Amino acid sequence: MKGVAALRLKKFRTLQKRFVAEGLTLVSELLDSRLKVVELYGTQEFYRDCPFASRVPVSACHVVAESQLRKISSLSEPNEVLAVCEIPSDPFDPSLGKEELCLVLDDIRDPGNLGTLIRAADWFGIPAVLCSPETVDCYNPKVVQATMGSIARVRVFTVDLVPFLEEAALTRPVYGAVLRAASVYTEELSPTGLLVLGNESRGISPEVQAVLTHRISIPSYARNAASAESLNVGVAGAVLCAEFRRRFPLTR
Amino acid sequence: MKGVAALRLKKFRTLQKRFVAEGLTLVSELLDSRLKVVELYGTQEFYRDCPFASRVPVSACHVVAESQLRKISSLSEPNEVLAVCEIPSDPFDPSLGKEELCLVLDDIRDPGNLGTLIRAADWFGIPAVLCSPETVDCYNPKVVQATMGSIARVRVFTVDLVPFLEEAALTRPVYGAVLRAASVYTEELSPTGLLVLGNESRGISPEVQAVLTHRISIPSYARNAASAESLNVGVAGAVLCAEFRRRFPLTR
Repeated sequence: MKGVAALRLKKFRTLQKRFVAEGLTLVSELLDSRLKVVELYGTQEFYRDCPFASRVPVSACHVVAESQLRKISSLSEPNEVLAVCEIPSDPFDPSLGKEELCLVLDDIRDPGNLGTLIRAADWFGIPAVLCSPETVDCYNPKVVQATMGSIARVRVFTVDLVPFLEEAALTRPVYGAVLRAASVYTEELSPTGLLVLGNESRGISPEVQAVLTHRISIPSYARNAASAESLNVGVAGAVLCAEFRRRFPLTR
Repeated sequence: MKGVAALRLKKFRTLQKRFVAEGLTLVSELLDSRLKVVELYGTQEFYRDCPFASRVPVSACHVVAESQLRKISSLSEPNEVLAVCEIPSDPFDPSLGKEELCLVLDDIRDPGNLGTLIRAADWFGIPAVLCSPETVDCYNPKVVQATMGSIARVRVFTVDLVPFLEEAALTRPVYGAVLRAASVYTEELSPTGLLVLGNESRGISPEVQAVLTHRISIPSYARNAASAESLNVGVAGAVLCAEFRRRFPLTR
């Protein structure tokens, strides 16, 4: 149980290839997913209520008191269970974006924003999110919680953006969300490609902007000049994904 | 300076009809807005850098050291200035939604979500946000910060939703964002009306659902059945506002 709190730090997550997820709803989803849960710390109520708890070998199931859970939890109000999960080691596929739309995140710093974007990717059937090395770690506990379980379904990779996008731009569109560009509602879009979103205050870095093939904006209808400078990046990403899907709905 | 920290609590904000905003960018925007800044606590750098500081009477401008700012700030990293502002006393107009689209929030609890929604309203030219009494206070410091200044431009009211919407539904559409309803992309929309968004976990309450005239959804394209249960409410609100504006762009 001692090692669990250390997983709040990226250094230990990387070393141990493990991360933490908390709460009845989220952990139930992870237990029902492709992710491997390696340790489970649950209250008696949890083991009584969660139909998926039996998927974890008995030796890895620990019954804890609420006071013990509070000690290892990152939440202000721990909720029945904490799971230690294996970080998946999906091999990176450099052809991502050729057959589907993928998100690319250039230096997203806020864990809530990254979590929201992974959750939106899941909703809109976007299978992968590619993050710059500066982007907050997707296994940061706040990100994991904000994904509401989507972290189990969307593949997230860390990629050096400029070389990857330079290569990618030869074979598929690389859209970038920027202020004051062509409206996404009038621009021609493609059902496949890469959609780049940038940092919360600085937007997409100049180096990445240089390799975009299309620059798109969400038009603002603010009532006066001193208007909202931008949308939250999680919101902007979702609005753009929604527009791609409106035009090219996935059929399964 | 003593009273400032008390404004973290709604009780004192209501009593004093004041709230706090922090940071160079946000305070600069508020100083350049219709809101009245009644006290300004800034570092020397702030008064040197902010062109709008002179809009506040000298007697209300306090030069503070960073250590003092830290004491009254709610931020982990205070940034040059803290402003105490007057809560505007806009009279509530019961005809809201007749001539424009307005947002209605039923029990939104997360300050970041409320801030994001106010910011999105500003971006999409939505002049007013109507909140149920259970919704988090829009002058909560975390909400104010998340609006990124939009709190100065969007009018926010607290309203008893059921009686208001019952009346409103007689003369304009009352849309509700719910799971598994008609797609917003195929449903007929109107350029005016009220758009209701519900609580983060429970959605729109049954009482409010009963008075909706239209139920709309953002279609999900999740790749499997065990999919994202919902979008974040800030994201969902913005995606819906964007679709109203795509169909009925505001012209000014």
